[in-house]
Amino acid sequence: MPIRIFVTGGTFDKEYNELTGSLFFKDTHLPEMLRLGRCRLDVSIGTLMMLDSLEMTDADRALIVERCRVEAETRILITHGTDTMVETARVLSEAFPASGHKTIVLTGAMVPYAFGSSDGLFNLGSALSFVQVLPPGVYIAMNGKYFPSGRVRKNRETGVFEEF
Amino acid sequence: MPIRIFVTGGTFDKEYNELTGSLFFKDTHLPEMLRLGRCRLDVSIGTLMMLDSLEMTDADRALIVERCRVEAETRILITHGTDTMVETARVLSEAFPASGHKTIVLTGAMVPYAFGSSDGLFNLGSALSFVQVLPPGVYIAMNGKYFPSGRVRKNRETGVFEEF
Amino acid sequence: MPIRIFVTGGTFDKEYNELTGSLFFKDTHLPEMLRLGRCRLDVSIGTLMMLDSLEMTDADRALIVERCRVEAETRILITHGTDTMVETARVLSEAFPASGHKTIVLTGAMVPYAFGSSDGLFNLGSALSFVQVLPPGVYIAMNGKYFPSGRVRKNRETGVFEEF
Amino acid sequence: MPIRIFVTGGTFDKEYNELTGSLFFKDTHLPEMLRLGRCRLDVSIGTLMMLDSLEMTDADRALIVERCRVEAETRILITHGTDTMVETARVLSEAFPASGHKTIVLTGAMVPYAFGSSDGLFNLGSALSFVQVLPPGVYIAMNGKYFPSGRVRKNRETGVFEEF
Repeated sequence: MPIRIFVTGGTFDKEYNELTGSLFFKDTHLPEMLRLGRCRLDVSIGTLMMLDSLEMTDADRALIVERCRVEAETRILITHGTDTMVETARVLSEAFPASGHKTIVLTGAMVPYAFGSSDGLFNLGSALSFVQVLPPGVYIAMNGKYFPSGRVRKNRETGVFEEF
Repeated sequence: MPIRIFVTGGTFDKEYNELTGSLFFKDTHLPEMLRLGRCRLDVSIGTLMMLDSLEMTDADRALIVERCRVEAETRILITHGTDTMVETARVLSEAFPASGHKTIVLTGAMVPYAFGSSDGLFNLGSALSFVQVLPPGVYIAMNGKYFPSGRVRKNRETGVFEEF
Repeated sequence: MPIRIFVTGGTFDKEYNELTGSLFFKDTHLPEMLRLGRCRLDVSIGTLMMLDSLEMTDADRALIVERCRVEAETRILITHGTDTMVETARVLSEAFPASGHKTIVLTGAMVPYAFGSSDGLFNLGSALSFVQVLPPGVYIAMNGKYFPSGRVRKNRETGVFEEF
Repeated sequence: MPIRIFVTGGTFDKEYNELTGSLFFKDTHLPEMLRLGRCRLDVSIGTLMMLDSLEMTDADRALIVERCRVEAETRILITHGTDTMVETARVLSEAFPASGHKTIVLTGAMVPYAFGSSDGLFNLGSALSFVQVLPPGVYIAMNGKYFPSGRVRKNRETGVFEEF
């Protein structure tokens, strides 16, 4: 089953600039991570934007919705910063209800993949698995769990996603 | 939903002995890997054995079946060497048919977790996700995919699991 | 030969705060790095401060000079941020001339050790070696080279230390 | 000052074959390690052989001596398996005495670089530093120390190099 992956940035893909000592975006690490995971799924990757999710605008979210709409794949994975992942999932769930035919899973990371001990590889394996088997609708995959959109928030004290 | 994890060894958990230059087993890395993945699932881990799967006997497999039977959890993940994972899945599927009430997922790794660039973290995220949502039966989760027992083999030339 | 190591902070020891997405200091990684390097030298480690070297004041530098003076060891290694390492070396060289009896080597890193692919481990091995064999005086050890204080600058375009 | 590096194999450069689960040699990691260490020394690298040092013959050692003799550089670093490093150093010291004009340093690793937490990067930084400043003669650089040839052995219980 073909899976579409959309990259939007987030901690997942942040790099360390050794001249300035700050974090920045360059290219996505998704292809390298899929290679590392020996992934043999039929995936195609598209980078929509490279943003810290705190900087994501309504226009950015409209673009994500539009791109999910026009692609033929019914299974879509979106990598996204964790800070506003819940908000983007909410916007997507209006366009792609459980009664539709698309399964969309958002995931991200608390630690940049480039920093070695990342949760990104674990989350990528998790999100790619959920997107294959969950029924239509919009979900967040974090902390080994999946959460239907509208029933999840990020706890900012602990960095953990929780159902409510 | 509580998930039981059984550790049986395999490449997943191999270490490098720097005095002899050979690979060996010490303790499982599962707790560390779950911590790294920021996993918040309700899991309990039990080490059944620490074997290269080429050395696994019928008695070992009988023990795995027995332990899957006696535990209360209906969702069970087994880490296993890839060489005979298909064989153990076959034995398990006789005891736990699709008409039963237990979902059992086997996974493993091609590269030891201790060697840095492992597929183990990706596979663990994947297998933990599949075990939550797949219907009762026995499955192998490798290469980002899941395979119902009895319809999968390991291609020894490529190291990849394939449906047949 | 006993070697004294003074930790002052710098990129070497920066950590990633996964809740805020920013870099900060916690504890030094020196003991772990020495263990990783299978180092068997007779070293004692003292943390003087944990600073980004851009924030280091004259008072901080006076403290470093004082601590180098009072310790009995004649071989001293100082880990330091690269941005003002040259400045601290200059201050130290006034107190510890080539005609004295103390060999002091400053080193640092361009990438935090905690971010996996650091130059810190290489630089630590290098600086610990130079400090054992160089004659009295103050030196910077970076990029595999050693530079006597007063004849070195950091090229801010390339991040490389150069003799002049 | 130009430095010649000769690669002879050893744990330093071992890889993990994920199809067979065994260790083997492919290409040397030296260029990547020098890049990681931000090394800016004037080095040229030549691979003489790729051997587990237990398999190194008298002919192999004669070749190493010969190559050290014909190269113009007076500073030479040799990467070597730790098991017979002491033996090769002894052979070299007959050809390159302290009264000569060549400084030769042998180093190696207890853990393969490819396995993540290697001592190789630390040892490489150390050996490259010693080779620049030690007087003519043959040395082993391990565990952060340097040992003149003929006064060092590897303790096989602890994996540590010791003076005697």
